[in-house]
Amino acid sequence: MSASRWVVSFAEADESQRYLLGGKGAGLAAMTQLGLPVPPGFIITTDACRAFYDSGGLVSEDVWSLVKEALARLEATTGKRLGDASDPLLLSVRSGGPVSMPGMMDTILDLGMNKDTVGGLAVLSGDEEFAWDAYRRFVQMYADVVLGVDSVALHAVTRVNESEGGSTLDARDAVASLLEIVDRKSRQPIPHDPREQLRHSVTAVFKSWMNRRAVDYRKAEGIPDDLYTAVNVQAMVFGNTGGSSGTGVVFTRDPTSGEPALWGEYLPNAQGEDIVAGLRTPLPVSALAEQQPDVFAQLEAAARLVERYNKDMQDMEFTVEDGKLWMLQTRRGKRAGRSAVRCAVDMANEGLISREEAVARVAPSELDELLHPVVEPRPTDTVFVTGLAASPGGASGIVALTADDAERLAEAGHDVVLVRDETSPDDFHGMVVSKAMVTARGGMTSHAAVVARGMGMCCVVGCRDLAIDDGAETITSPVGEIRAGDAVTVDGTTGRVYLGTVPTIEAKQDEYFDKFLGIASEMGGLSVWANADTPQDARVALAFGAEGIGLCRTEHMFFQPGRIEAVRAMIMASDDASRADALSTIEPFQTEDFAEIFTAMDGLPVTIRLLDPPLHEFLPNRIDTFESINRLQRELEDPLTVDRLEAETELETLRLLLARTDRLAEVNPMLGHRGARLGVTYPEITRMQARAIFTAAVQCAERGVAVLPEVMVPLVAYLSEFQDQKRIIVDTATEVFERYGVTVEYRIGSMIELPRAALIAGEIAAECDFISFGTNDLTQTTLGLSRDDSSRFLPGYLSRGLVGTDPFVVLDIEGVGRLVSMATTASRESNPEIKVGVCGEHGGDPTSVAFFASLGLDYVSCSPFRVPIARLATARAAIQGSID
Amino acid sequence: MSASRWVVSFAEADESQRYLLGGKGAGLAAMTQLGLPVPPGFIITTDACRAFYDSGGLVSEDVWSLVKEALARLEATTGKRLGDASDPLLLSVRSGGPVSMPGMMDTILDLGMNKDTVGGLAVLSGDEEFAWDAYRRFVQMYADVVLGVDSVALHAVTRVNESEGGSTLDARDAVASLLEIVDRKSRQPIPHDPREQLRHSVTAVFKSWMNRRAVDYRKAEGIPDDLYTAVNVQAMVFGNTGGSSGTGVVFTRDPTSGEPALWGEYLPNAQGEDIVAGLRTPLPVSALAEQQPDVFAQLEAAARLVERYNKDMQDMEFTVEDGKLWMLQTRRGKRAGRSAVRCAVDMANEGLISREEAVARVAPSELDELLHPVVEPRPTDTVFVTGLAASPGGASGIVALTADDAERLAEAGHDVVLVRDETSPDDFHGMVVSKAMVTARGGMTSHAAVVARGMGMCCVVGCRDLAIDDGAETITSPVGEIRAGDAVTVDGTTGRVYLGTVPTIEAKQDEYFDKFLGIASEMGGLSVWANADTPQDARVALAFGAEGIGLCRTEHMFFQPGRIEAVRAMIMASDDASRADALSTIEPFQTEDFAEIFTAMDGLPVTIRLLDPPLHEFLPNRIDTFESINRLQRELEDPLTVDRLEAETELETLRLLLARTDRLAEVNPMLGHRGARLGVTYPEITRMQARAIFTAAVQCAERGVAVLPEVMVPLVAYLSEFQDQKRIIVDTATEVFERYGVTVEYRIGSMIELPRAALIAGEIAAECDFISFGTNDLTQTTLGLSRDDSSRFLPGYLSRGLVGTDPFVVLDIEGVGRLVSMATTASRESNPEIKVGVCGEHGGDPTSVAFFASLGLDYVSCSPFRVPIARLATARAAIQGSID
Repeated sequence: MSASRWVVSFAEADESQRYLLGGKGAGLAAMTQLGLPVPPGFIITTDACRAFYDSGGLVSEDVWSLVKEALARLEATTGKRLGDASDPLLLSVRSGGPVSMPGMMDTILDLGMNKDTVGGLAVLSGDEEFAWDAYRRFVQMYADVVLGVDSVALHAVTRVNESEGGSTLDARDAVASLLEIVDRKSRQPIPHDPREQLRHSVTAVFKSWMNRRAVDYRKAEGIPDDLYTAVNVQAMVFGNTGGSSGTGVVFTRDPTSGEPALWGEYLPNAQGEDIVAGLRTPLPVSALAEQQPDVFAQLEAAARLVERYNKDMQDMEFTVEDGKLWMLQTRRGKRAGRSAVRCAVDMANEGLISREEAVARVAPSELDELLHPVVEPRPTDTVFVTGLAASPGGASGIVALTADDAERLAEAGHDVVLVRDETSPDDFHGMVVSKAMVTARGGMTSHAAVVARGMGMCCVVGCRDLAIDDGAETITSPVGEIRAGDAVTVDGTTGRVYLGTVPTIEAKQDEYFDKFLGIASEMGGLSVWANADTPQDARVALAFGAEGIGLCRTEHMFFQPGRIEAVRAMIMASDDASRADALSTIEPFQTEDFAEIFTAMDGLPVTIRLLDPPLHEFLPNRIDTFESINRLQRELEDPLTVDRLEAETELETLRLLLARTDRLAEVNPMLGHRGARLGVTYPEITRMQARAIFTAAVQCAERGVAVLPEVMVPLVAYLSEFQDQKRIIVDTATEVFERYGVTVEYRIGSMIELPRAALIAGEIAAECDFISFGTNDLTQTTLGLSRDDSSRFLPGYLSRGLVGTDPFVVLDIEGVGRLVSMATTASRESNPEIKVGVCGEHGGDPTSVAFFASLGLDYVSCSPFRVPIARLATARAAIQGSID
Repeated sequence: MSASRWVVSFAEADESQRYLLGGKGAGLAAMTQLGLPVPPGFIITTDACRAFYDSGGLVSEDVWSLVKEALARLEATTGKRLGDASDPLLLSVRSGGPVSMPGMMDTILDLGMNKDTVGGLAVLSGDEEFAWDAYRRFVQMYADVVLGVDSVALHAVTRVNESEGGSTLDARDAVASLLEIVDRKSRQPIPHDPREQLRHSVTAVFKSWMNRRAVDYRKAEGIPDDLYTAVNVQAMVFGNTGGSSGTGVVFTRDPTSGEPALWGEYLPNAQGEDIVAGLRTPLPVSALAEQQPDVFAQLEAAARLVERYNKDMQDMEFTVEDGKLWMLQTRRGKRAGRSAVRCAVDMANEGLISREEAVARVAPSELDELLHPVVEPRPTDTVFVTGLAASPGGASGIVALTADDAERLAEAGHDVVLVRDETSPDDFHGMVVSKAMVTARGGMTSHAAVVARGMGMCCVVGCRDLAIDDGAETITSPVGEIRAGDAVTVDGTTGRVYLGTVPTIEAKQDEYFDKFLGIASEMGGLSVWANADTPQDARVALAFGAEGIGLCRTEHMFFQPGRIEAVRAMIMASDDASRADALSTIEPFQTEDFAEIFTAMDGLPVTIRLLDPPLHEFLPNRIDTFESINRLQRELEDPLTVDRLEAETELETLRLLLARTDRLAEVNPMLGHRGARLGVTYPEITRMQARAIFTAAVQCAERGVAVLPEVMVPLVAYLSEFQDQKRIIVDTATEVFERYGVTVEYRIGSMIELPRAALIAGEIAAECDFISFGTNDLTQTTLGLSRDDSSRFLPGYLSRGLVGTDPFVVLDIEGVGRLVSMATTASRESNPEIKVGVCGEHGGDPTSVAFFASLGLDYVSCSPFRVPIARLATARAAIQGSID
């Protein structure tokens, strides 16, 4: 590295070299070169810091002589001299790496103070208090940063000082006390010579790059250690010289709403660190407009200029010294999701940034903030228990421990939070009326999690520390015990459950949300479809811009009241005839459901998955049945029981049910008799479902509603299974079309959700119109990892870094992704016309979507409430793709 | 096809053209050309049959004129003429395709008979009865085969005839009755002209290729339809012309024992079909030696000649006509497993065949017959229920419904068959004392199946039609109900369970078994190791020639009495300290077990798999616990219960147990917290096991026993898991070696039993000494198919042909095999030194072994009792590989 890059002035630096100058230095150089009032100074670059470490921790004479040259030029520019007792130059020495590491590294202000210069400064400023306060500030920072004196001891001095309000005597006494502490605690003194002060300070800032908290922070944030920090040496300006001075922070746009007007704070007669310390309450920046309109106008112009130059909202620090504006820092302004969206839309419309850039500016997590209520806990709020953040958002309500209780309480007008060990489809009626769900067991794709995401309801699952006692109606966590009926607040974005009611900001999708997604859609890329089981889901999905339904699970329809009885009758059927009877009861319901969904989607594709779950999922829980039997048996032993006959009949029914449940019970239901296997074993189920689909389709067509049904066969492992089911579907379609004399276009496809299906996808694809990756089950089987059981050990894996991300949230690209990639390639080879999609939860995860986009998939399908995120993710992936 | 190939005489045919001549024709041609006495004749070839079908079912004039030419030459050779009333030539017309289809197609004998020739034949033979009987036989066959007259009506006539014993009048009457039936039932008469008879007969034999039962047979056996049949036209010879005539069948060696001496049957004064009809009981062929020693000597010489010529044991038909021997057929002799083994060994030693050929001659299923008792049911025996043939062999015993009952009955000296819904490790003590196992649930790799195969005990699983009532102590099948204590016979080779005691031939491995495996071992190929969990297993494996242990499951050791309590204490431990306590109780047991196995294997590699099953498998069944709680609660409600305190304490313990069981219970244990995941979560378990392994190893080494431990990490999905476990193992090894001052060689490897592990095998292999495919679990996860639940639908898949073979028996090459192949390639690329093996059940399946051999794997490991089969399979694969 060349010595010419070790020290460079703000006026001469090439601000594009952020890695060399650091972010702060680059901002100062840019503002200087834009002609804005920046206190003059220079940057000791990251190259110099690298040289410092390469030479074993010494500021070399070569660097130091360049610093001295720069200092001489600074003295010439300012007309002041460092250490000049009558008109001292004072310096700020601040770290500034290429990547922002707020608060991680050190700063020394008022460098140049000593027992001689303090007098000169007092005379010059006509303010002895100000001069001694500057000296106090310098001593305190130098002792802390350079000498490593225990900062608690140092702060004790100043806390007394500050709490009592400043006076000349106080600042002078504080300096004396601080110097005494230094004398006692440090082997090194504070040099009298300001050049020595500077040399030691620069060394200290360089060293602070490797202090413990900076190293830990970089590790956590993934910032490389060998970026190094620059040091900015700059003439001090003072905001604490009286009423026409002050200091402030402004954002060029509102960081909360994105409104394009200057937003910020101003504290008269103060230094920057006084705002940070939080001892005095700043005013809105409009106060400056009232007090010093000219200065404010100057500030506004500067803000506009820098924002236009940097093409992004800026977060700027400034100081006013005796009515003169000085710009001290500019950087990209951090903003809330809503602001990010509006800034992106406005800036694109202003022509400040391209439309692609607007899309790239909003992270999916930022957009997510507009979709879900945000819990804003106060310091006093208590976290009762923490689990997996299964479905984002926040809600408060009173605890119900059963679905029935939830329903009763909701009918009585309460907001309800349903808390269960785990949920089953039997709990559905309680879930739909609740504001939030909490479960003790289950992972990111457990029943509760999947249903909650589908409904856009916030949900925390897998709270391993939660013990629920249904009998006593209590819930216990390590924090304590609460009872059914107590209030809690659930934060599904962080996974926290709070005691009581915690303030929550409601979600709102404003005009900018829609405008932003409109811009995103211009980028092309994958289509975004939705997983939607009901007409209501379909309408939500459409409102969020879904272009089709990629997964309509028919089994949820089976659980609605008045249907589950027929479904159970079908399962209990001991012969084909009674099974057919039960199926014919279910068929009209299914037909009606499909017709409604087709109508809602109005010609967009609707992908209907044939019955997937093992039949025993539709039966009551085995243990519940067992307990009912026990209860009844005891009642029968009691001679006072009146309805003996009724009890005995009920007992018989329950025993039959238990026997059937036992016959159907599976050791590993995930790998059991489900999916296409059901349809192969009971072709009458497939036939009924196909008939319902095609009857609904032709009935819609007759009413003039456009329809595009896509029938999807789940859990295919063998080509023969798909062929078997396809034949039934095609035959049934032909039958229905002939009966009605109406033909509609339809497609048949296979889910690819088992490794074997992925391995033979080419063969399957040759006989399909589409394939759709069921990445939930594909993840479970490829990793041999049950979604319901993974909460036992996966959190430990994640916290120990054995696994980078939860594979049920972010697709496991190395393993599952490889199968998806192989299968896609083989499918396109054997059938160039094939449409390839994803209908697992990963379809709504930005990282996963980017991967799917890189494979050239046609669509992703996700929960309706994830559709906007997926649209953004596909747009970002499309932009990335066009760059690659 | 050339007309020159349509008709060919025995004397001129090229007998290597079996596809053209058919098996029978080729055999006749070979014997003719070897100079043996074969009645002269010719073959109408399969090409002619093909031409027949190509021309829409007509014997063309071209073919017919060639037949007439051949016939003319036959008349010239025999000096007789077809239809000659004074000295008629009679013909046999027999089908004979390239592949044997016994009894599937048609034959017409005595062709040439009519009302004129019957008289001539009577005069010529001096035996009117004989002549009319020949006429009767012809009419009956012609009417049946050519005219399609209902064979029941035809047989009714002859049955009366035969039952009453033959007389001239009877045969003449029978002809009259038969001709009358033909007259009534057939639109076509029997032609008087023998040439017409021949033409129609040839047509009928051609047509019989496509009759229903032949088509079905070919479909079932996988024989292509377009092979077609040849027709053999041959001069009749007669074994029923008196006392110096007869007919017989001989094998050139004993088809049961393989003893190298003529073996067969002889029936004096009879035609071949009389033996087939079974109306008269044949004598041993030695009868011929006594009656006509010259003829017998001739037969022996012929047998030797043909066997030497065909280099295989022959099954030959012959007829003696008035003291002259005629050879009518020769073909490869079918033989029992024991005979196949001895024939192969003897023929190799005789120099008749090469040693490679000897190995190729014995099918693995034939060898298997020597390893397991064979059930030989009588026609009167009743099959009670049928399930999956999980572990071969046969055994009789009385039914026990619990492991405890089995133990009690076995102690009382009974042979016991343990019948359970399914088994768990808790049943182990009952299984070890039983002669056979039957379960109602579970598949080919369920607990019962795996344990039974490991012990070489016969076992039938997944008897879906079995209902077991533990309370009533009854078992019901569609056949009826039996009780505990009743006798049954289990055939684990066919999957049948018989009522009562059915004769069973004990298994015996004789000297030829050992000699044969010795020859097999000369072929090289994959090494064969065994899955062995105990020193006893290890000794069996060694006796069968295993070269190492490829899978030693440590968990089975956990179940032994005195240990399971400590294991449960470990599981119930609520903190690390009490878990460590429990582990330190288990450690000495493990150390001792390993030391015994190392000692038994004496320096051969012993691959020890770390703890694999989910911990809840070691706890008592949830339902059992639940029922105990209910029972105790009721007892407590009864005021007369004495031991209230004791009951309450027990109740508390049970409740704790139930709570822990519930906490540990998993929805899909197969995909749950097991394998490496246990070791990662509870490193102290891995540390304990590693310490036990290395302590045992150094203790053996100190005693001078050679040891080679290989530590295997199960269920690895992520590289990080393997690295984590490897670090613990290496650290523990170092610790132990330092403590003892002894170092032993050891290896560390990973199981590849999840699709993800297969996909990243290259990365894993880079850090391993070996990898071992766990094809059971890899099959379960790749196919998404639970071994315990597949019996619900897999049998249906198999019977409908949706799946060719049970993927838990024969490796699914298309799916799982592809992963194995990809992983092997990647592993060898990243680590050329790596040893690659298989330790799933497929390691003992010949088809699967051939596939593993084709991938160049280093070893397969299987149950000890499968080792001989695997050795044969690897030898055959090696021969195949050297041919490819």
